[in-house]
Amino acid sequence: MKIRTAQDYLQSLKKLNHVVYYKGKRIKDVTRHPATAPHVRAAAMTYALVNDPKTKDLATATSHLTGKTISRFTHVHQNVEDLIKKVKLLRVLGQKTGTCFQRCVGLDGINAVYSVAYEIDQKYKTDYLERFKKWLIYIQEENLMVVGAMTDPKGDRSKGPAEQPDPDQYLHVVERREDGLVIKGAKLHMTGGINSHEILVMPTTAMDAKSKDYAVICAVPANAPGVTMIFGRQASDDRRDKKERIDSGKPTFGAVGGEAVIAFENVFVPWDRVFMNGEAEFTGVLVYRFAAHHRANYGACKTGLIDVLTGAVAYLTQIQGTGKASHVRDKITEMIHLSETLYSSSIACSAEGQPTPSGAYLVDTMLANVCKQNVTRFHFEVARLATDLAGGFLATLPSEYDLKSEEVGHLVRKYFSGVADIPTEDRIKIGRLIEAMTGGTALVESMHGAGSPQAQKIMYMRAGNWEQKKKMAKKLAKISEKG
Amino acid sequence: MKIRTAQDYLQSLKKLNHVVYYKGKRIKDVTRHPATAPHVRAAAMTYALVNDPKTKDLATATSHLTGKTISRFTHVHQNVEDLIKKVKLLRVLGQKTGTCFQRCVGLDGINAVYSVAYEIDQKYKTDYLERFKKWLIYIQEENLMVVGAMTDPKGDRSKGPAEQPDPDQYLHVVERREDGLVIKGAKLHMTGGINSHEILVMPTTAMDAKSKDYAVICAVPANAPGVTMIFGRQASDDRRDKKERIDSGKPTFGAVGGEAVIAFENVFVPWDRVFMNGEAEFTGVLVYRFAAHHRANYGACKTGLIDVLTGAVAYLTQIQGTGKASHVRDKITEMIHLSETLYSSSIACSAEGQPTPSGAYLVDTMLANVCKQNVTRFHFEVARLATDLAGGFLATLPSEYDLKSEEVGHLVRKYFSGVADIPTEDRIKIGRLIEAMTGGTALVESMHGAGSPQAQKIMYMRAGNWEQKKKMAKKLAKISEKG
Amino acid sequence: MKIRTAQDYLQSLKKLNHVVYYKGKRIKDVTRHPATAPHVRAAAMTYALVNDPKTKDLATATSHLTGKTISRFTHVHQNVEDLIKKVKLLRVLGQKTGTCFQRCVGLDGINAVYSVAYEIDQKYKTDYLERFKKWLIYIQEENLMVVGAMTDPKGDRSKGPAEQPDPDQYLHVVERREDGLVIKGAKLHMTGGINSHEILVMPTTAMDAKSKDYAVICAVPANAPGVTMIFGRQASDDRRDKKERIDSGKPTFGAVGGEAVIAFENVFVPWDRVFMNGEAEFTGVLVYRFAAHHRANYGACKTGLIDVLTGAVAYLTQIQGTGKASHVRDKITEMIHLSETLYSSSIACSAEGQPTPSGAYLVDTMLANVCKQNVTRFHFEVARLATDLAGGFLATLPSEYDLKSEEVGHLVRKYFSGVADIPTEDRIKIGRLIEAMTGGTALVESMHGAGSPQAQKIMYMRAGNWEQKKKMAKKLAKISEKG
Amino acid sequence: MKIRTAQDYLQSLKKLNHVVYYKGKRIKDVTRHPATAPHVRAAAMTYALVNDPKTKDLATATSHLTGKTISRFTHVHQNVEDLIKKVKLLRVLGQKTGTCFQRCVGLDGINAVYSVAYEIDQKYKTDYLERFKKWLIYIQEENLMVVGAMTDPKGDRSKGPAEQPDPDQYLHVVERREDGLVIKGAKLHMTGGINSHEILVMPTTAMDAKSKDYAVICAVPANAPGVTMIFGRQASDDRRDKKERIDSGKPTFGAVGGEAVIAFENVFVPWDRVFMNGEAEFTGVLVYRFAAHHRANYGACKTGLIDVLTGAVAYLTQIQGTGKASHVRDKITEMIHLSETLYSSSIACSAEGQPTPSGAYLVDTMLANVCKQNVTRFHFEVARLATDLAGGFLATLPSEYDLKSEEVGHLVRKYFSGVADIPTEDRIKIGRLIEAMTGGTALVESMHGAGSPQAQKIMYMRAGNWEQKKKMAKKLAKISEKG
Repeated sequence: MKIRTAQDYLQSLKKLNHVVYYKGKRIKDVTRHPATAPHVRAAAMTYALVNDPKTKDLATATSHLTGKTISRFTHVHQNVEDLIKKVKLLRVLGQKTGTCFQRCVGLDGINAVYSVAYEIDQKYKTDYLERFKKWLIYIQEENLMVVGAMTDPKGDRSKGPAEQPDPDQYLHVVERREDGLVIKGAKLHMTGGINSHEILVMPTTAMDAKSKDYAVICAVPANAPGVTMIFGRQASDDRRDKKERIDSGKPTFGAVGGEAVIAFENVFVPWDRVFMNGEAEFTGVLVYRFAAHHRANYGACKTGLIDVLTGAVAYLTQIQGTGKASHVRDKITEMIHLSETLYSSSIACSAEGQPTPSGAYLVDTMLANVCKQNVTRFHFEVARLATDLAGGFLATLPSEYDLKSEEVGHLVRKYFSGVADIPTEDRIKIGRLIEAMTGGTALVESMHGAGSPQAQKIMYMRAGNWEQKKKMAKKLAKISEKG
Repeated sequence: MKIRTAQDYLQSLKKLNHVVYYKGKRIKDVTRHPATAPHVRAAAMTYALVNDPKTKDLATATSHLTGKTISRFTHVHQNVEDLIKKVKLLRVLGQKTGTCFQRCVGLDGINAVYSVAYEIDQKYKTDYLERFKKWLIYIQEENLMVVGAMTDPKGDRSKGPAEQPDPDQYLHVVERREDGLVIKGAKLHMTGGINSHEILVMPTTAMDAKSKDYAVICAVPANAPGVTMIFGRQASDDRRDKKERIDSGKPTFGAVGGEAVIAFENVFVPWDRVFMNGEAEFTGVLVYRFAAHHRANYGACKTGLIDVLTGAVAYLTQIQGTGKASHVRDKITEMIHLSETLYSSSIACSAEGQPTPSGAYLVDTMLANVCKQNVTRFHFEVARLATDLAGGFLATLPSEYDLKSEEVGHLVRKYFSGVADIPTEDRIKIGRLIEAMTGGTALVESMHGAGSPQAQKIMYMRAGNWEQKKKMAKKLAKISEKG
Repeated sequence: MKIRTAQDYLQSLKKLNHVVYYKGKRIKDVTRHPATAPHVRAAAMTYALVNDPKTKDLATATSHLTGKTISRFTHVHQNVEDLIKKVKLLRVLGQKTGTCFQRCVGLDGINAVYSVAYEIDQKYKTDYLERFKKWLIYIQEENLMVVGAMTDPKGDRSKGPAEQPDPDQYLHVVERREDGLVIKGAKLHMTGGINSHEILVMPTTAMDAKSKDYAVICAVPANAPGVTMIFGRQASDDRRDKKERIDSGKPTFGAVGGEAVIAFENVFVPWDRVFMNGEAEFTGVLVYRFAAHHRANYGACKTGLIDVLTGAVAYLTQIQGTGKASHVRDKITEMIHLSETLYSSSIACSAEGQPTPSGAYLVDTMLANVCKQNVTRFHFEVARLATDLAGGFLATLPSEYDLKSEEVGHLVRKYFSGVADIPTEDRIKIGRLIEAMTGGTALVESMHGAGSPQAQKIMYMRAGNWEQKKKMAKKLAKISEKG
Repeated sequence: MKIRTAQDYLQSLKKLNHVVYYKGKRIKDVTRHPATAPHVRAAAMTYALVNDPKTKDLATATSHLTGKTISRFTHVHQNVEDLIKKVKLLRVLGQKTGTCFQRCVGLDGINAVYSVAYEIDQKYKTDYLERFKKWLIYIQEENLMVVGAMTDPKGDRSKGPAEQPDPDQYLHVVERREDGLVIKGAKLHMTGGINSHEILVMPTTAMDAKSKDYAVICAVPANAPGVTMIFGRQASDDRRDKKERIDSGKPTFGAVGGEAVIAFENVFVPWDRVFMNGEAEFTGVLVYRFAAHHRANYGACKTGLIDVLTGAVAYLTQIQGTGKASHVRDKITEMIHLSETLYSSSIACSAEGQPTPSGAYLVDTMLANVCKQNVTRFHFEVARLATDLAGGFLATLPSEYDLKSEEVGHLVRKYFSGVADIPTEDRIKIGRLIEAMTGGTALVESMHGAGSPQAQKIMYMRAGNWEQKKKMAKKLAKISEKG
């Protein structure tokens, strides 16, 4: 692991020199720009935990390729224990950052591609897995951060990749050269996009033979020529005009992963970084596995976030003098109930994990989808409960400038106080933390990250064993099999 | 109605010269400052509708004091028809502004104080109602906007007004002079506070004899000496740095009412503007009636907002190519279902309205509370559904600067397009509208405005006729009455 | 009103001599058979309330045809007040019987047919309304109970009436004679079917020209030749083996309306009892209006039922010693909240009622559908809360035989006691009442009576003004109308 | 395993000669009486699966006491694998019986008592564990069914055991003799009570020193002198008047576990069957562990039940012609989603199991409570969805007698048909199955079995690590630790 510490990671990004725009201007240093720095710091925590004796066992793994100790975020899961340790690692990271630390997307991409490359090779005698292993060893040794790049713009959603008026609405190969491919298109909503070293490009949906040029997997350095990133807006993002301020709510870390557009304008990719090249019939299983891994994670990291939010609400009600009311305690227990329900599915789909033919372990797909589906419901409900208990001041708090103003600061301090002896500033800070964690972007991310609700429902239709269930019922009702 | 048009209203505010702070600086002109102007424009719509033949019947009423045509927002409800017309007016205003237009708080204060002043007079032979009528005729003739000022800071919520270490945590009389009262304290979360002409101060909770100095109702001009307002922050408020921009989502109108702290630092109030002075036993009924009126409104204005949000989602899914999917249509119908459920209670509590002893009509209290309780639940669910259908781009849209950038504008335009022929800019605008309507502050307002959820539950405990219901059950179970 | 009292009603049924089967045997006297008597008694309450001074104003109306005082259940609504009085009457009946009293189905049929007959006449110069008025005056004068018969068996639900392999799956005209029609088919789930004097046959769905023979409205006496009824099973129906027993839970009245199949095997109907004869384009509006009226009712009668259930739970928790626990009180308030939410829509759709061209008033259709949709959700939730608070003994109570047994009666009495001084028998009775009101059939009725959930959703798709809502959103987002 | 087969089990019960009453009469043979036989057959399935090669691995375990192969239902869990296999066994049993097979209560009692006996011995140098092992080996060798008997009548629930006016409301020691104890009291809601060989008596709640006589654990043979059982009523129980009938819905197996009162009227227990005798401070941990094990099970067996119910609904909609409607498919996927959410927690709490000091493995308590809490919510929702899709005929189906009647059988057959070629009888059977699985008693059992909802909430208050969560939040908000 060449990048051993959070500090190493920040240094590596400073040198990356990739093209990132935000509010119409290029960002020179993502580790210092107020819009991106909080997200970088959250990702840096994945590096920091490696060095903490309490978390080292969770944060590292032994490479099955090299036998060396590596970051768990670069590991191919070898057994159920690996899957469960990952879940616990993600919860701890959620608790420590209160936000998305972004690095699991690349991990899930690595695991999905690894297993699918093996299966393409089995069918076509290709050497994708060898190429991929070579690249992966490089990632492990350097301890690089990888962004798993899947979601295409999709244009008119009623049409498939090959039917779009604009062919670039799905990333595709525009040229096949002797030394490699040239790709064009974009990936949207790229969590951790602006602070990763490498981009693992994957197809976004199951495709058929008509879409061969869209069936491509490859690895692209973040600073490759032709790659342009545009960092998205977030709710209340302008509060981060200076570092570590009260009004931003979570001064050190951001509210979400920090999502970006990554555009590929005729980007060249050499063959040894290409891991699928037109084998469209494997796109479905790739998406399915990536989605399963990624959906499994949401019950872990979001549980960590809700731990923080629950604590914030418990503390705020205490210093407001409402903490002992029965309805307050009941709503906090409800937050815990919902959170632990999410966690259950993350643990369960890991405990029920099974090896793919490649040996890489895959979570139980049904339970992983259950996990994500519940996130799309419960995070809003948890936010609703937190908002209820926190009180209306979440919506009406004067700004930090007013708090510190000579003219009106005394009024803010006086009239936003709680129980005696607790500084008003503490009440404001915890209120702003809750505001940041229950606001718009954080909830949108829980809704759509790792797949929108309907994606899981479609999975239930396919994988719910409807016919087997009908048989059980008919047997108990004493209806003959023929019926 | 001296103030006849939206323009008149804006002019009147320019001349008001009241003290408003925001981000540590005094706002000179609330009609032009980007932080406050959208809220002013929303309130101005209450003036504008008077002049629209389609809405005039809803927007005006005939004063029972003068027989003149007045704004319905200054009217004492005389019958069920008045209550129902008010509900319909609020829904139309919600549809036209997509936000809180703020003026119902004063209306509810006027109706609550009117009926209670009558009852205090009956008991104590005071002349509060005469004073109040005089003030009210002035409001009606001038067509002024009144902020109903109820919510005190409350400090340690486990303690009552008279038990607070700091006596100012509830607004109170600090001096009684020959010519009037002097009050000190603050009112928080004052919707429309910074753009009202008058403040109608009311006690925030039921009080007993120990709290006589806290039992005060009076009217204070917004520009009275000693009155200071601090305008609160809202989610993404800094996007309104210039007028009418895409990123603000709702360029003309704000996302919520525009809430402010109003601090009273030893403000003098002459006797003819005092409508309660220590009659603490009437504070309960005042709060109860104000709350009933105000809770009734939420099923009307929020329904108007959800009409807009539903339309936004229906349009966005159409231009994204998903509009015909069965799950999309099902979720939109669910939004309509929830919205019309809210509206039901607003209509129902009005249809079941009854006269108070003063003749002023009061909504059915149980059904008004039902209305607000459902708002605290359904607005989050509606936001969840809207977020689901809108898609992840709500959380990752690049800024308007990027959209217009020479370097990356072409990428934004290309990769955020939808179905052919619809400008990308339209899709972004509708996305930003949905973002603004489902984000943090808007939902907090639905949760806490007009009383937090537990306030309604407490009402159910008191007013649910538990004993009568027990009797019904015992009769059907053939249990003797003694049991 | 020839039938003036509950007793008159029972006598009239004894003389009816209609054909009713139950458990394979013909029932001689529906007023005395243990399976049907409880339902008859519930319907009889609609007659009894006419004679109670406290309810007479609700229970009667003035016929717009004769000017005479009639039962409100035979009245054509003339104004909003009529609609609201009906709602209040239904709630009182629900409170007094704790079950379905069945008579509103006929009322809704009368109102729907009246308005549609008028409109057919306008178009085709037919005399349906005159025929109908004649029949209706007869119903009013005699004060007969009418069953509104709409739901056909439907066979294969993926096929329309004219496409069924068996043409009888929808009731239809099999012969047109000089003196009248001959009909064949069946109506299922006929609430109050076995204790009505008259059957008002209506088409079950919107039909087109291909289905002319299925587009028939007519009135058939319950004892007409060829009419056969089969009374359905209900949950725990065998507990009613003798009258007024503890284990039946609600000894006097039944758990639901008492539903029956009514089969028509070539039944002759003279022309003066035919009110539609092939005018298929009017079937849609008929169904729509009947459904609106009927859905409106569910928020009234079910609210009455939930009043009883809430009282039962409040009483039971009191005598078990748990009544003061905060979670118990919170759940009871939740039951009240849900119940009053239902009631809101019943009141609201009535308050917003409008005249049809015939002068008969129709409820607001959107709000009436909202009402029923919520019933399909909230009744289960209310049952869940009641079950929670009542405790596990609902599922494990020994039988009344054990309670009265010499060998084990002492054990039942001892070990199912609650707080001191309350007879164990009372606790058991209230437990059995709750069991009966939360069990299977009662909930199925709330789900499907007046239309299944999807029927309301389809209405939202049609009547939700989607285009208007899109316009509002586009205006606020500053998108041009063309977009 | 002396009892090797389902048939052996039935034979063993015939010889038991224990005292069981139902409807006031003694049941001679629980294996043949129509009220009890279905439950006996469900329990017999736990014996049958041992002999099926497909399930043997799940259904058996290796005794850590004797090394012999035993029924898993008599096993002390030795590791996580044991816990997970148990979960899978329970789901299969739920799928095969569609109901409660009752035997897990004894299993959970065995595991809880085993670990607590060890800990009492450690503290007091008693020999409870040795006594318990001796008894347990007997259970394992004979392969007996044990009922875990915990729930006391509780009388006035606002009072503890020692404060009840009637001391017998909690089972207690009435005499301590040289050769053993004499106990008096009762256990209610005893699942599998009437078809178990042994009763494992445990205290029902955490007790203190005042309640020493109530702190007793012991094993009592079902046929011990002084033991009397009264079998409870269930919804629609009288439909089981003959064996295997359509109207009973689930002809072979019952709808729930078959719950009974077990009264102990001065029952003598020799010392070697006593495993706690007054060590009141261990009652809390015993209840806590028993509850954790038992709550964990509910996400497994109920999932099996819901598998059956989902299949029934999928099949019924298919033969009704509605199976392809999008809302139907959506609701079925929702049933699957809820069911698999329950399963997640069962798997998760097992995967996170830890050894107690005795070596016996205990599930993760938080996740086990989450599991049961969700069962109390989701089973009603699943029933609601099933009721929705099945249609109103669940509530109105004529009886089996009518179906077979010469007079009206042809009408039932004709008018309850579905799509062509499917016998009407099959549609009725599947309808009755759904009716039986969604009716009253089945849902009450899901609500209260293994502890009512509030019991889990109380656990969240205790075990939710509120202080740790507050610290996380304060750290992220940059509030000093002192605050």
